[in-house]
Amino acid sequence: MHYEAAFLSAIQKVKSEGRYRVFARLERDKDIYPLARNHGPGPEHVVIWCGNDYLGQGLRPEVIDAGKSALDRMGAGSGGTRNISGTHQLHIALEKELSSLHNKEAALLFTSGYVSNSATLSTLGKIFPDLIIFSDENNHASMIEGIRFSGSERKIFRHNDLDHLEELLKAERYDRPKLIAFESLYSMDGDFGPINEICDLADQYGAMTYLDEVHAVGMYGHNGGGVSQQDHAEKRLTIIEGTLAKAFGCHGGYIAASKAVIDAIRSYAAGFIFTTSLPPATVSAAIASIRSLTQDNKIRLRHQERAARLKRMLREAELPLMDSPSHIVPVKVGCPVLTKKISDTLMVEYGIYVQPINYPTVPKGTERLRLTPNPFHTDKMMDDLVLALGETFARYRVANDRQQVQPAQCPFGGKL
Amino acid sequence: MHYEAAFLSAIQKVKSEGRYRVFARLERDKDIYPLARNHGPGPEHVVIWCGNDYLGQGLRPEVIDAGKSALDRMGAGSGGTRNISGTHQLHIALEKELSSLHNKEAALLFTSGYVSNSATLSTLGKIFPDLIIFSDENNHASMIEGIRFSGSERKIFRHNDLDHLEELLKAERYDRPKLIAFESLYSMDGDFGPINEICDLADQYGAMTYLDEVHAVGMYGHNGGGVSQQDHAEKRLTIIEGTLAKAFGCHGGYIAASKAVIDAIRSYAAGFIFTTSLPPATVSAAIASIRSLTQDNKIRLRHQERAARLKRMLREAELPLMDSPSHIVPVKVGCPVLTKKISDTLMVEYGIYVQPINYPTVPKGTERLRLTPNPFHTDKMMDDLVLALGETFARYRVANDRQQVQPAQCPFGGKL
Repeated sequence: MHYEAAFLSAIQKVKSEGRYRVFARLERDKDIYPLARNHGPGPEHVVIWCGNDYLGQGLRPEVIDAGKSALDRMGAGSGGTRNISGTHQLHIALEKELSSLHNKEAALLFTSGYVSNSATLSTLGKIFPDLIIFSDENNHASMIEGIRFSGSERKIFRHNDLDHLEELLKAERYDRPKLIAFESLYSMDGDFGPINEICDLADQYGAMTYLDEVHAVGMYGHNGGGVSQQDHAEKRLTIIEGTLAKAFGCHGGYIAASKAVIDAIRSYAAGFIFTTSLPPATVSAAIASIRSLTQDNKIRLRHQERAARLKRMLREAELPLMDSPSHIVPVKVGCPVLTKKISDTLMVEYGIYVQPINYPTVPKGTERLRLTPNPFHTDKMMDDLVLALGETFARYRVANDRQQVQPAQCPFGGKL
Repeated sequence: MHYEAAFLSAIQKVKSEGRYRVFARLERDKDIYPLARNHGPGPEHVVIWCGNDYLGQGLRPEVIDAGKSALDRMGAGSGGTRNISGTHQLHIALEKELSSLHNKEAALLFTSGYVSNSATLSTLGKIFPDLIIFSDENNHASMIEGIRFSGSERKIFRHNDLDHLEELLKAERYDRPKLIAFESLYSMDGDFGPINEICDLADQYGAMTYLDEVHAVGMYGHNGGGVSQQDHAEKRLTIIEGTLAKAFGCHGGYIAASKAVIDAIRSYAAGFIFTTSLPPATVSAAIASIRSLTQDNKIRLRHQERAARLKRMLREAELPLMDSPSHIVPVKVGCPVLTKKISDTLMVEYGIYVQPINYPTVPKGTERLRLTPNPFHTDKMMDDLVLALGETFARYRVANDRQQVQPAQCPFGGKL
């Protein structure tokens, strides 16, 4: 076997499809945020328009101070797995904070949102050997992984399609253990999941529910408890999953549920048991972030206002904004090569950083720029962005809203 | 379905087997290390004897300072996945440090050692659809998960048994893609893997090799490059996997390999792509830790001296020390209930914290206390520990080395 050649050919395949990833090399700096220092091609400073620290919480002074103080007292790492010397008072305090945020009896920390999805969903398959999982077709990669690794039978329902979901539920016998897995806010399209309607079906057909709130916690609901809080559905859901790495600006993931669910996952999930717990600084910063954010509704309003303004401007400029009711603002290009070209041009010529989003993150033919306005983006930054997008889309002849511009030919069959 | 009842019964099962985990509630404090504040039953301060921050690096002043300074400048979280605004100069610098430590062309960071194993091994199965994986029976849970999720055929070889491995390799056709997955230091028994001998077999039968160095990096080899460095085998291995969370005292995992391997895993591994990158403070602290540790051989010598002294004392006290050539010091009890009782007694009556190690971390019947002496444990702490172990083992009538003590009956069929 020529192993090295096989690795090279795997890379070549990605390149030949125009979706080879080149990471931007940035250096965050709280004094110039949302600008960052740029160590790649382009100007020295660029405006970040695609970050997932949606509210800039990672740079809030009390969050940074909490992290520094924990580092100073407790050191850089936790020193062990949760079971073997790695449970600190801080972990317990953060879990309490999270269960209270979601109006649940208990919560459990994981090293990331990815791991919380993968470990929890795969473990449910162990606890219920005959489990069948109903999964929204747009669910995140980490949920898909967890569902696959559960070994359970799975049925994919069309995105947000309640009729299709009901049809699939109806086909199973009532007493078979069932789980419906879905998201409150789908990160690449920015649309919401119908939480209460899905809970109605779950009640009717005797299913558990698993809701990924990763792109909503901190941002929706009266104190940041997510869309399930906004929709008054927390108590109806079996498991709510979230992250500390997006609106809370830190790192790590979690689930919130009843005491029994949490204790069972805690006792069985390999991805929870056999891994070093989160560092004290991260946990301490997360506690500070949640506490500040639950009390600061102004930042949530400002965030929504920024997103609404940007969408309005993109519409007025007749740019191909994809329909999104949330703070996520996707602009369609439809071809991986063009998306990359536009992204490179924005970076090098305009000092605007928006990463191209290609397959497998989104379906082929829907390649896009995904803009994430945050409360610190000024009107001026927004005006510059929309102007730059207009010029760049015209230059590369990407179809606009009214098809006045001749679309460039995408060499990969993307529909322009 | 009575879901809640099913979760409760899953917990009851663990309890009835005597292996329900109760986490110690500690509070690390760099000023009193290796003592920690205890928030559970027992005295206010306890000596940690089971930490995995093997060298106390997480508390080294330059490590803490590096973390604090990064937090101060860059904030608490990275702000995105590696591809979408989450690659900082720091991540690139740390990957360079790691590739150089392991004498490899490149390295790739993951959010944990667990994820690095799970994501890399499962991805190899995608890159080589006909792959067959030969896996040591004592491999860590994260490797087992990755191998299972690879979808590849797998053959388990008896622990460190070269004849058995060769027999299995020989049975496959030469040109079939093969991978041998093993560890350099098995964490629960403390024994080493025969790296060069396994590489010889890999050469002979045309296999790739994957070595987990999680419990060895920082501690073995002339500058902490692990057992593969000590054995001059780095160049022979296809992939070396390690962690920043044990001897380096921080958080996160990584692999080191050729440029092509790293680029392929970077491009295909869902567990790498779809997750927020490590926080700046963690990355910065890890760089400082590696740099200080590569230059400080005295701490490695002191660590080995401490472990040797403890093992000598346990032998002299005729306690059931399991044979271990490394810094890991396992003392066998052989029953989950007794192990827990001994651990509780040590904590409450002696202020000594050693977590019981039960199934599934170790096979049933080999339940144990796993001691991890570090350079900061004093002679006095060691004397106290051995005295306390002697008294406690005698009280619970655990078999000693010479079977002078009548073994207590383990209610779970453990061999005492």
